[in-house]
Amino acid sequence: SEIFAQNVGAVGVGVDQELISSVPSSNPTFLARNFTESEIAYCRSQPSPESSFAARWVGKEAVFKSLGVTSKGAGAAMKDIEILSDKESGKPVVVLHGAAQEAAQSKGVKNVLISLSHSETVAIAFAQAL
Amino acid sequence: SEIFAQNVGAVGVGVDQELISSVPSSNPTFLARNFTESEIAYCRSQPSPESSFAARWVGKEAVFKSLGVTSKGAGAAMKDIEILSDKESGKPVVVLHGAAQEAAQSKGVKNVLISLSHSETVAIAFAQAL
Amino acid sequence: SEIFAQNVGAVGVGVDQELISSVPSSNPTFLARNFTESEIAYCRSQPSPESSFAARWVGKEAVFKSLGVTSKGAGAAMKDIEILSDKESGKPVVVLHGAAQEAAQSKGVKNVLISLSHSETVAIAFAQAL
Repeated sequence: SEIFAQNVGAVGVGVDQELISSVPSSNPTFLARNFTESEIAYCRSQPSPESSFAARWVGKEAVFKSLGVTSKGAGAAMKDIEILSDKESGKPVVVLHGAAQEAAQSKGVKNVLISLSHSETVAIAFAQAL
Repeated sequence: SEIFAQNVGAVGVGVDQELISSVPSSNPTFLARNFTESEIAYCRSQPSPESSFAARWVGKEAVFKSLGVTSKGAGAAMKDIEILSDKESGKPVVVLHGAAQEAAQSKGVKNVLISLSHSETVAIAFAQAL
Repeated sequence: SEIFAQNVGAVGVGVDQELISSVPSSNPTFLARNFTESEIAYCRSQPSPESSFAARWVGKEAVFKSLGVTSKGAGAAMKDIEILSDKESGKPVVVLHGAAQEAAQSKGVKNVLISLSHSETVAIAFAQAL
């Protein structure tokens, strides 16, 4: 029952924001390093690709914060935090790979919920690790 | 115990933001279509009605996102997501009606927590479906 | 099992935002009234102290909202809501004192999760009382 109590409820939360114009979404090297092919295809299919890239970028950062992991320097592979779009509902879904997945497992995180929002100028994301 | 585990903890989260000036809160048709009488009375009693309308507007959108429902086109009755103010604490409380209530029930959502914030120019809301 | 159900899952959420320039972080009286010595030392050690003070300021407000307490007038001792930085992970950690701690206990709150973010101009915080 103690173990159960540790596994339900939130483990961590993360919020992040960024000016859409400050995310270098027209830089192919930046995109290739930080986004998966599925993410790039999805963002490019959207009405405003640069808004979608920015929203996913802050989303990755928010997920990162929600996991409470130590360093986010050179080692932080943002590509390991993939944000896909649920085909039925359209809502964003987090899929973890590599080091991000290992960090989540080591903290008992089973799932990360995410929500994204962008205005004309600002992208905001909120993540919750459960 | 598995059923129990599904019923506690978060089901979905939602974040939304909007420039206060972009919410047409002086348009009576917009208000009548999207806000309940209680919401309109409350917002009009506040120091800055347009800020309060904008905060509730992004609040409704955040609740909508937290429910993870499919379409938000013509069918999305924002009036079905009512955000009242708790008389004792003043904190915002979500009451669902109609299709929003049905969507929540079908997903096992028992309660939706919400928080609203507005600066001079921007309204932000966060919702969590439990 | 009902008591257990009340103790897991979220009790309340709180979001807050502020223009960094609107937080009087160069005013020593404001700082001494609202921040603990540890918070002041931490913020002063950061690359942009005024951003760090603003982030913690909105963080305190978000925690306050997540607790769902009644008044936030003169009685609200923001100093009772302390936001420290975990030495290992660097992530922000909430420590409650005095009236804030009593309010949390009376509502069955065991822990408050927090995340902070600041852009060039805006600080945003999200808190979740569990």
